[in-house]
Amino acid sequence: MDAKPGDRVKIVTKDVTNEGILLPSEEKDTLVLKLDSGYNVGIVKKNVKSITVVKKATERKEEKVVVPHNPKLPTVAILHTGGTIASKVDYSSGAVTAAYTAEDFIKIFPEVSRIANIDVQLIARLMSEDMRFKHYKLMADAVIEKQKKGIKGVIIGHGTDTLAYSAAALAFMLENIQIPVLFIGAQRSSDRPSTDAAVNVQAATQFIVKTDFRGVAVCMHENMNDDTCVILPACKTRKMHTTRRDAFRAVNDTPIARVTPTGEVTFLKKEFYQPEKGKTFAPKLKIEEKVGLLKMYPNLHPEIIDVFTKHGYKGLVLEGTGLGHAPTNIEETLPNYEALKTFIKKGGMVVMTSQCLYGRVHPFVYTNLRRLAEIGIIFGEDMLPETAYVKLAWLLGNYKPEEVKKLMAQNMRGEITLRTEREFDVP
Amino acid sequence: MDAKPGDRVKIVTKDVTNEGILLPSEEKDTLVLKLDSGYNVGIVKKNVKSITVVKKATERKEEKVVVPHNPKLPTVAILHTGGTIASKVDYSSGAVTAAYTAEDFIKIFPEVSRIANIDVQLIARLMSEDMRFKHYKLMADAVIEKQKKGIKGVIIGHGTDTLAYSAAALAFMLENIQIPVLFIGAQRSSDRPSTDAAVNVQAATQFIVKTDFRGVAVCMHENMNDDTCVILPACKTRKMHTTRRDAFRAVNDTPIARVTPTGEVTFLKKEFYQPEKGKTFAPKLKIEEKVGLLKMYPNLHPEIIDVFTKHGYKGLVLEGTGLGHAPTNIEETLPNYEALKTFIKKGGMVVMTSQCLYGRVHPFVYTNLRRLAEIGIIFGEDMLPETAYVKLAWLLGNYKPEEVKKLMAQNMRGEITLRTEREFDVP
Repeated sequence: MDAKPGDRVKIVTKDVTNEGILLPSEEKDTLVLKLDSGYNVGIVKKNVKSITVVKKATERKEEKVVVPHNPKLPTVAILHTGGTIASKVDYSSGAVTAAYTAEDFIKIFPEVSRIANIDVQLIARLMSEDMRFKHYKLMADAVIEKQKKGIKGVIIGHGTDTLAYSAAALAFMLENIQIPVLFIGAQRSSDRPSTDAAVNVQAATQFIVKTDFRGVAVCMHENMNDDTCVILPACKTRKMHTTRRDAFRAVNDTPIARVTPTGEVTFLKKEFYQPEKGKTFAPKLKIEEKVGLLKMYPNLHPEIIDVFTKHGYKGLVLEGTGLGHAPTNIEETLPNYEALKTFIKKGGMVVMTSQCLYGRVHPFVYTNLRRLAEIGIIFGEDMLPETAYVKLAWLLGNYKPEEVKKLMAQNMRGEITLRTEREFDVP
Repeated sequence: MDAKPGDRVKIVTKDVTNEGILLPSEEKDTLVLKLDSGYNVGIVKKNVKSITVVKKATERKEEKVVVPHNPKLPTVAILHTGGTIASKVDYSSGAVTAAYTAEDFIKIFPEVSRIANIDVQLIARLMSEDMRFKHYKLMADAVIEKQKKGIKGVIIGHGTDTLAYSAAALAFMLENIQIPVLFIGAQRSSDRPSTDAAVNVQAATQFIVKTDFRGVAVCMHENMNDDTCVILPACKTRKMHTTRRDAFRAVNDTPIARVTPTGEVTFLKKEFYQPEKGKTFAPKLKIEEKVGLLKMYPNLHPEIIDVFTKHGYKGLVLEGTGLGHAPTNIEETLPNYEALKTFIKKGGMVVMTSQCLYGRVHPFVYTNLRRLAEIGIIFGEDMLPETAYVKLAWLLGNYKPEEVKKLMAQNMRGEITLRTEREFDVP
């Protein structure tokens, strides 16, 4: 075939005819077509009966971009880890531009150079589901370097899927960080008219330049418009929709601030977690590998708990039902209770959260909850299961067991909200 | 001690003094006190230094209640399985009344007798986290009996924690059920001024009496007021808050109808799933025991997938990240991919859902999603992880593997919403 990426083509297979822009594909045996709906479709080459070029891509001369430096502007570091935010497809040439150098970044996001000087660094090229604890360390190390260099703040571009897990991890690891570290992502890639990438980048840069916020947070679209972003608390944020641009929501908390891409900042609450000014920066970068997260469900069998004991896990976060229940109270479910007791007896730490996500777990409301608390299960208050997982792994990497137990139920980085009178109104 | 349940007492321990109403406790070594805040606190007897009776409970004569029967009213069956909805504490006597007989039910919910005649049956006394598949069978059998008796509809009182799992299970099991089956629960028990029990019972009864709705649904508070309940689709409903009375929400769907306790019914959408009128009732009551639900998270290790293979599981629902990802694409996460491939090679069925909960999984957006689809992982569209778990266990109990694979991705009971053009707008 003589069709090239960027060409508009018609592809006929046995079942269906598709027309769209041919995209570059990293797979040898698959063609990827961007349909007019904006939707990408993969077509296995061996099923293709014919390809017709409808319109050749226009040839484009590569523009040379000079990264501007304005001595009056502060410098913001952009760390890339991969994900949708970092790349852009040019439909006329089919070229994919990754924003991994300052030149490419300015080409994709030219508006940013009017807000700050940029310092672009590639940390990793990952789909965010593949993030490991070692990547959290890479990100933390890079942030520490930037803080040493006296940079005004750091933006971390991250795939959206596990962005919130990473934000929580860095919040715990970078104790008393004295600069802002904002995680951003994109739910729609920069090659889509509906992309949220540019607005998120601009809003994050503005927030760093215009405020003296310190600590780790998330900056994403506030709603379906392109008018505003919100700064969300690192340990209380969750991706709540697979595709919406406003998928990121504060859970059991509210956003810290609203920011426009043009630089208007409104703080939305009086008090929110941020490290005290001038407090000694005390990074703690170890994370325990052997920690798990397990959702409770009806008809759970004990072997699914035992596997954590058998493989020497040090910690286990349970995503319980309701106020923090696990199926452990009747004859058929008692083996789960014994499995949890054994895990704890062998030194494992168990933390209870709720699959409701909203609201608070509570060990004293029902007898069976007290039973769980009595065998040493730590009730994680209104902490998100994902945050509890990251926190437990981090605590186990850096503290002694008694300290882990104590700190797990205490607020350290805004991950636990104090009970209010209204919230006490439980049973 | 001479304090009796119902007495107002002051209990002093080493650490703290509590005053409140002494409740009956099923545990020998613990006292349970209802504080004035409405909050129950458990106190270990051996820590008690003193108990002072502040005010004796007033003696009450047990009222004899006659269950009315009005031949002009239809009959509604009330099946009890346990949970908050079914019991009430009388603070002056300390007595706990369980609504397990028609007499007790009418004592607690007298308003219902003006709407329908009632037929009360106790199925089980469980905290809902202890529900097993065998209990789904008990509930389904009882519903079938009631349908045979020509009863107008069935209300199932259920603990709220796993109510939505049970509702989905019965929706699948009771194919073409020709009467309404409404699950109700209470987030606050009947002994609290803020209880939602009475309104939920009345609204469910009204909906059954006033409409010709067929099939399984959930009836719970619409908001924080006591004005209205919503009828929620059995397979698209989730408990989204640990304590709020309006915790139950339709996810990737909208409520079917609004009902007031006085019997005003407004249908909120034109089309919703319900069995066709007069279609043959075809219950399928088997459920495969060996099915699991596993949430994906960063740094997942393959032994947590392997355990399902080792124990001969037939099905596994993954709660993936974003559009349906699992950590399987880089050197460190590839063992998870191999573990999933092995599980499938041994005949296991894997279904992908999203931990975002809102939105749809989508196997064709990214290369790594296509990789998962290619090894045979079934993408569960916009199905809730909990519903997918129950559906997979039910399908495996009643259909051949090829049928399971086909039916899993098809809408059977309203658990999958058709894609709309807007929803196609994904990457």
